[in-house]
Amino acid sequence: MTDHPSVVGLGQCSLDFLGTLTGFPERDQKVELDDVLIQGGGPTATALVTLARLGIATTFLGRVGGDEAGSKIRSGLLAEGVTCQGLLVDTDATSQLAFCAADQNAGRTIFWHRGTARPLAAHEIDVEQIAAGSVLLLDGLHAEASLTAARMARRQGVTTVLDGGSWRDNSAELLPWIDHLVVSEKFARQYGGTDLNAAVSALAEFGAVAVTVTSGAAGSLTCAADGTRFTMPAFPINAVDTTGCGDVFHGGYIYGLLQAWPLFETVRFAAACAALKTRALGGRTAIPRLAEVQAFLKEQTVVRPVFC
Amino acid sequence: MTDHPSVVGLGQCSLDFLGTLTGFPERDQKVELDDVLIQGGGPTATALVTLARLGIATTFLGRVGGDEAGSKIRSGLLAEGVTCQGLLVDTDATSQLAFCAADQNAGRTIFWHRGTARPLAAHEIDVEQIAAGSVLLLDGLHAEASLTAARMARRQGVTTVLDGGSWRDNSAELLPWIDHLVVSEKFARQYGGTDLNAAVSALAEFGAVAVTVTSGAAGSLTCAADGTRFTMPAFPINAVDTTGCGDVFHGGYIYGLLQAWPLFETVRFAAACAALKTRALGGRTAIPRLAEVQAFLKEQTVVRPVFC
Repeated sequence: MTDHPSVVGLGQCSLDFLGTLTGFPERDQKVELDDVLIQGGGPTATALVTLARLGIATTFLGRVGGDEAGSKIRSGLLAEGVTCQGLLVDTDATSQLAFCAADQNAGRTIFWHRGTARPLAAHEIDVEQIAAGSVLLLDGLHAEASLTAARMARRQGVTTVLDGGSWRDNSAELLPWIDHLVVSEKFARQYGGTDLNAAVSALAEFGAVAVTVTSGAAGSLTCAADGTRFTMPAFPINAVDTTGCGDVFHGGYIYGLLQAWPLFETVRFAAACAALKTRALGGRTAIPRLAEVQAFLKEQTVVRPVFC
Repeated sequence: MTDHPSVVGLGQCSLDFLGTLTGFPERDQKVELDDVLIQGGGPTATALVTLARLGIATTFLGRVGGDEAGSKIRSGLLAEGVTCQGLLVDTDATSQLAFCAADQNAGRTIFWHRGTARPLAAHEIDVEQIAAGSVLLLDGLHAEASLTAARMARRQGVTTVLDGGSWRDNSAELLPWIDHLVVSEKFARQYGGTDLNAAVSALAEFGAVAVTVTSGAAGSLTCAADGTRFTMPAFPINAVDTTGCGDVFHGGYIYGLLQAWPLFETVRFAAACAALKTRALGGRTAIPRLAEVQAFLKEQTVVRPVFC
């Protein structure tokens, strides 16, 4: 760990084509989009952008293709001040792409392709890269490299955070190396069944300091190793686009970890970042700066954790 | 009209981001695409590409933005040999974009944005451009220019064809100037109600030589001014992607018009072009050349018109 807190993220980066629409179409129909945007995305990449906007030094590790999308992904991260020396290129491969349909009722339907660029291999992960951060964020792709990096992090005293979207083949192997598990409802239910309380408890048995399941507008549920368990409502906001809310939540959560805040405060801050993000089309457009989150939290005194 | 048949198309051109998937997602879900492709599209533009592959000289009239998509739309048309001198550019505007999701059951769900480039104005249409073709193809966008061009075509003895996808504000004004109306089921029903036979008859009252309604895998229904009425089944084919089938049908239909074939033969040829198109992802990838269509039609003797 260095004196100045910094975060290393190893995972997905994408080029997103986003569009707003009134009603989500039936299959085999045509629907006209009201507005469109092309912007960088991806869970880990957008979480790092969030941290960068909050003033934290960040480094991204991953791989893009040699296509135009790859160049745009890189320039989008560099424009936010994310260090990209560990963003490798597979010249003949394609980058991750996504189409995100943001409907009027704040649903975001995502069609994504992982691209043909090879996942990072274990030998491409350098212990110095991992030890350079206070926190390591993973998102489940790059299975082999993620496991290697998480083990390195544990040995180096670097806190590990996993953004779990879908339960994957490598999840069970990776989870014992994760300190903070912040996952989707889908991930929790795929592992632990339909009862979310039971699923969170089951996930907690992998040994994380805290497990949080995010449920979009329904808020989140957190279970800590010390026995604390609380729900946090989502902040009421007139959402334009919820794409990337989970990613931004992770950025805010890690910001809280770096401040050594109480867990409920960290989760509340993360939820505020995610809520503010929804103000505009695009996973990154409306990601707030620190002062905005602080001002928002001062106003929104009603949203508090409910300890169970 | 010139000695060598040629076709002028005035309408939409798009840059399509296409992806194949197993099941179409529920709203607010994430789905991973198996394969992706970026390719030029748009009803009129893809119909002209079809004609170009069949050996016909073609000219496109329309407008793109000054963005990368606009350059790609132009280069995609030029690569097929479509003349693009009448493809104007709005430097500060965006081009038409689409995301097309091709599912396993041959459904194609299209999310499209018309871009911010201005529609062509009436004064931007030159009578010499219109008179240069034997056939003028329109697709309903560029309302003002389409009406002007259709009127010029009538005066110049140029045959007009309309690709009607959705009934629009300008449709009723445009239809009297159209010789061959080849429309979607949606267009027919929006104007003439749910009974397709009645809707076709209602559309025929605008005075076209022939009205054809295409219904995808369910085939098509044609009603000619001479009283001929027939259905044509679709050719059985294992479809990978049906995006652009309607556009390619129009290209094939116009090819038949240029050959002065009997109407049922023209429609059968059009249906064969559309069927062959479905062999690969992308509105244009598998558009056949003339010899391919001819060979396919020789094999597929079972698919014949049914006169009613």
